[in-house]
Amino acid sequence: MTDFHRHPDSYHHWKLQIDGDVAHLWMNVDPEHPYKDGYELKLNSYDLGVDMELCDAVQRLRFEHPEVRALVVGSAQERAFCAGANIRMLAGSTHPFKVNFCKYTNETRLSLEDLSINSGVKTICAVNAACAGGGYELALACDEIHLVNDNNSAVSLPEVPLLGVLPGTGGLTRLVDKRKVRRDRADVFCTMAEGMRGKKALNWGLVDAIWPKSKFQASVDEHAKALATAAPKRAAKGISLPKIERQLLAGAKDSKDLAEGFRYSCVTVELDADRRKATITVSGPTGNQPKNGAEYEAAGAEAWALRCYRELDDALLQLRFDHEQVGLIVLQTRGDRDALLQVEKDLFANREHWLCHEILLHMARVLRRYDLMARSTYALVDADSCCAGAFLELTIASDRVYALDSDKVEFAVGPLSCGLLPMSHGITRLDNRFLAQPEQAAKLAKEMPTLNAADADENGLCTYLLDPVDWDDDVRIALEERVSLSPDALTGMEASLRFGGAENCDSKIFGRLSAWQNWIFTRPNATGDEGALTRYGAPEGARFDWRRT
Amino acid sequence: MTDFHRHPDSYHHWKLQIDGDVAHLWMNVDPEHPYKDGYELKLNSYDLGVDMELCDAVQRLRFEHPEVRALVVGSAQERAFCAGANIRMLAGSTHPFKVNFCKYTNETRLSLEDLSINSGVKTICAVNAACAGGGYELALACDEIHLVNDNNSAVSLPEVPLLGVLPGTGGLTRLVDKRKVRRDRADVFCTMAEGMRGKKALNWGLVDAIWPKSKFQASVDEHAKALATAAPKRAAKGISLPKIERQLLAGAKDSKDLAEGFRYSCVTVELDADRRKATITVSGPTGNQPKNGAEYEAAGAEAWALRCYRELDDALLQLRFDHEQVGLIVLQTRGDRDALLQVEKDLFANREHWLCHEILLHMARVLRRYDLMARSTYALVDADSCCAGAFLELTIASDRVYALDSDKVEFAVGPLSCGLLPMSHGITRLDNRFLAQPEQAAKLAKEMPTLNAADADENGLCTYLLDPVDWDDDVRIALEERVSLSPDALTGMEASLRFGGAENCDSKIFGRLSAWQNWIFTRPNATGDEGALTRYGAPEGARFDWRRT
Repeated sequence: MTDFHRHPDSYHHWKLQIDGDVAHLWMNVDPEHPYKDGYELKLNSYDLGVDMELCDAVQRLRFEHPEVRALVVGSAQERAFCAGANIRMLAGSTHPFKVNFCKYTNETRLSLEDLSINSGVKTICAVNAACAGGGYELALACDEIHLVNDNNSAVSLPEVPLLGVLPGTGGLTRLVDKRKVRRDRADVFCTMAEGMRGKKALNWGLVDAIWPKSKFQASVDEHAKALATAAPKRAAKGISLPKIERQLLAGAKDSKDLAEGFRYSCVTVELDADRRKATITVSGPTGNQPKNGAEYEAAGAEAWALRCYRELDDALLQLRFDHEQVGLIVLQTRGDRDALLQVEKDLFANREHWLCHEILLHMARVLRRYDLMARSTYALVDADSCCAGAFLELTIASDRVYALDSDKVEFAVGPLSCGLLPMSHGITRLDNRFLAQPEQAAKLAKEMPTLNAADADENGLCTYLLDPVDWDDDVRIALEERVSLSPDALTGMEASLRFGGAENCDSKIFGRLSAWQNWIFTRPNATGDEGALTRYGAPEGARFDWRRT
Repeated sequence: MTDFHRHPDSYHHWKLQIDGDVAHLWMNVDPEHPYKDGYELKLNSYDLGVDMELCDAVQRLRFEHPEVRALVVGSAQERAFCAGANIRMLAGSTHPFKVNFCKYTNETRLSLEDLSINSGVKTICAVNAACAGGGYELALACDEIHLVNDNNSAVSLPEVPLLGVLPGTGGLTRLVDKRKVRRDRADVFCTMAEGMRGKKALNWGLVDAIWPKSKFQASVDEHAKALATAAPKRAAKGISLPKIERQLLAGAKDSKDLAEGFRYSCVTVELDADRRKATITVSGPTGNQPKNGAEYEAAGAEAWALRCYRELDDALLQLRFDHEQVGLIVLQTRGDRDALLQVEKDLFANREHWLCHEILLHMARVLRRYDLMARSTYALVDADSCCAGAFLELTIASDRVYALDSDKVEFAVGPLSCGLLPMSHGITRLDNRFLAQPEQAAKLAKEMPTLNAADADENGLCTYLLDPVDWDDDVRIALEERVSLSPDALTGMEASLRFGGAENCDSKIFGRLSAWQNWIFTRPNATGDEGALTRYGAPEGARFDWRRT
C-alpha cells in the first residue's frame, strides 16, 4: 500500500526548522530518492514523495508547533528554488496517476493557504534562485513572495511554451484570481519560458518584494519575525501526530487483494474487486472523549475527533492512488449518535481553543477531500447507522443517500453543519443541497433536529427511502448499475453536479483549471509520441496537430 | 464557406408562427436534410444545420417581431419532442468539430435565455412527447417547461448511461445552478436512460407544469397568452434582417485559399495560412448614422451598429468552423473615433428604445462570442486605429494589446463600457481587467477618457507600448512566437486567464462543464473503437477502461 506517513526526522527532501515563533521549511530535494524509479529529482523538482513530506510538514506545524506564527518556505539549494513537478516523472506516468498527483498537490497547496487564512500562520515564500512551474505555484500558495533581485532568480510558468500543458497546480487561477494579475500580463508571463525577474516581476504583481542577494535571507527573516509578532498567539506547546496504524483485513494477502481490504481503529475499507466497489465504514467515538481544550491537549492524537478523520483521510488517499478501478465508494456510519454529537458540541463550544480549532479545520479538509473524490459515492443509512453531525455531512456529501424506512433510523444535524465544515466553494453542504430552498438549509442548521428516516426524507436529506423488504435488492441493484457506467462520464458528471452556486478561486482550480489540464493531458499534442511533454529535452521538438479546439 | 444565413421561408427543420404577441417555434426536423451526408435526423434530433435555424429564429424574434412577448418552443412531431444532438453525427465528427458544434449550440441556448432576461420575451418549452438529451437541454434554456402527463412523455438526460459523454450543452449546470434541482436528485436523473415523467418530474423540479394530453396545447397556449399580456410591450413593427453579404478577397480562389480571405462591408478577414493567422479588421461608421429610435427603425439593418456586429459575428463563426488551423486572430480597428463614439452615445441615450436596446444586446453577444474564441487574440493599435467604444472593448477582450507609442494613437472609453456589454460571467471587461484595482475600472467607465498611447499604457490598457522603430519587428516576432505554441495548451490557458473573479451559471457552462466534456470526448471510453459513443446502437456494448480519474 502507499505509505503516506512521513516524519521530519526522516524527510529526504525538506528540512523543518523551528526558531521560536518562526518556522523555516527548506526544500532540498534528494535527486537520488524519487518516489518511483526511473527519474532523478534534479534542481529541487518534485514528485509525490516530495509533496507527501510538504503535506506532513504543514500538518505538523498546525498540531505539533502551535508556537509558530510565521512560516518561510525556502530552498537549501543555491541553483534553484524549485523547478516544479519533475517532467520525466510526469511524462512516464499514466493518465490516472498524473490526475491524482495533481489533485493531491493542489490539496497540499490549499492546506498551506488554509494554514494562513484559518490558523493565522503567515507564510512567506523566499525565492532565492530560479523558481519555475510548480515551484512558482508553490510560491503562489504563500501569502507573500520575496525574490532575490539578480540575473538568475526568475519566477516563471513555462508549462505552456516548454511542455504543452498547463500550470495545473492552481497557477493560472491564482495568478488572476488570487494575485489579480492583469489578464494580458498573465498571458505574457505564462508564455515566457524564461519568466520574469526583479523589478518587473514586482511591478507586474508576480512577487511582493525583491531584495539584493546579500540582504535576502536577513530581510526575509526580519519580515517573517515581524509577521509572527503581529499574528495572534496560538499556543506554546503542541501535540504529536503518531503514525496512523493500518492493518490488512484478516485473510487479505496484500492490499491489492481486492476481495478483502484494510482497517484502522475507526475506519474500515472493504474492497470488492468484482463489483469495483469499496465500502468505507466510519465509526463514532467510544469511551471517554475530551470535553475541553485542556483535555484535548492531554488526549492528543488519540482523541477520536482527530484520529478518526486522520484515518479517513489516509483511506481516501489509498483509494485514489492504489485502487483506481474502484468506481464506487459505499459509505456506512456506525456508532453512538449521542456520543458523537456530544464530541461535536464540545468541539463547537471550545472552537476558539487552538487545538479544537485545528481539529475542526482538519475535519473540514478531510470532508473536502471526500467531495473531490473522482469516484461515485453512495451513503447507506440503516438501523445501525450513526448518521449524525459530521457523519451526516459525509452522508450528504455523497452523490446519493439510501435510507432504510424505519423508526430506528435517525438523522441528526449537529453543530458543525452551520459553517464550520465548508465545501471548496465556500458554502455549507446544507446550502449546497438546498440551493432552491435556502430557508430549509438555514432551518436545519439552526434547529439541529434529529429526524427519523421518513422525516429526514421529508426534509430533503434522503435520495431514496427504501422499504425494509426491498432494501437488500434495491441497494444491490443500485450499486451494480452505478459501476456499469462510463467512469469518465461519471467523473465529469459528478464534478458538475456536486458544486452548485458561484465558484471561487479554490473551486475554479478543481473545476475549470483541472478539467482543462486533464483534457490536455489526454491529447497527443502533450502526451503523444511526438507531444511536447513526451519530447521535452529531446533533440527533435514536438510536432503538433494545429487544429484549434 | 459555411453559410450561416437562414430565413424562416426556407427553414427545413423549424416553423416560426406568429400570432399577435405570442410566437410558436415548431421543431419538425427533416430527416433527409442533415447538415452533412452520412446520417439521418430521426426523431427531431439535431445537427449544426438545425441549430442555425433555431439561432436565426431567435434573432428574428428580437428584430423582426418585437410585437412578440411570449414564445412557445414545441414539436410538430407526435413521437418525439426532440431526441437531442444526433448521435451518428457526433460519433462521425472530428474532435474540433464536436467542440465547436457544442459551443455554438451553447451560445444559441444562451441567446434564448438572453431573449427572456433582457428582452422580456418569456419562453415556454412545450414538451409533447419524449424529450431527451439536447432536447431537454433546450427545454432547460426556456423559462418554463410544460410536459404532457402520459406514459410516453419523459424528460431525460441519457448521455451518461447511453453514450458515455456528458449532457454538455449546459444540461448539468442548468439542472443544479438554474433550476436548483437537488444534487442527489440531479445525479439520479442524469443516470436514468429512461428519464422521468409526470408528477415525479414536476416534484423534482425538472418541469414546471404537467397537463393531460387532451388539454396540453390549449393549456400551454393559454399560459403563453397570459405571460405575453403581462410582459412589457416592445414595439408593433420590427425591421428585417437581410442576408449578410460576404465576398472573397480579390485573388482568393476559394475560402480555403488561406493566402487570401473574405470581407464584408465593415469587416475584413485576411488569412495567412503559413503563419496560421487571421487578421480581422473592423471599421467604424461612415456617412450619416441614426440618432434615435425612429431613425434606427428607418435605417433597419443598414445601420452601422447592427451591420458591423452582424458581420463580425459571421466572421468569427467562419473562423471557428472553416479555419481550424488558424491559431491567432489579429484584431485591427479602423475608422473615425468621434463618429463611432457618437453612434454609441446615441445608442446609450436611446437605450430604452426597443431597437437600440436590441442592437446593444446584439453587440454584447458578439463580444462574448469573441471572448469565447478558442484562438489567441492580439489587438494591434496603431495610428490608423479606431480604438474607441466597443472597439476598445474588443481590444481589451483580446489576450494582448500591442500599441504604437505615438501621440496619434488614441484610446477612447465609450459609454457602453459601464455595463452594457457584460462578459459571460456578468462583469464588465474593465472590471475583469482591473480585478486588483476596481477603482481604476470604475474611473475609466465613469470618466470615459480619451488617452494617447502613453497615457493608455499608464492606465493599464496596453500590454506592450512599442517604439515606432521597433513596431514591425516586434509585432512580427510576437505573432510568430504565439502560433508556435501548443494549440491545446493555449486553449486551456486562455480559458483560465480570460475570466477572472467568481463564476456564474453561464460561465460555468463554458468553464467547468465544457472542459470536462472536451476531456471525455478525447477519451477512448467515449470515442475509441470500443467507446460508448462509437458503439451506440451496436449489438456489442461499449468496453471501458475502468480506471477512475
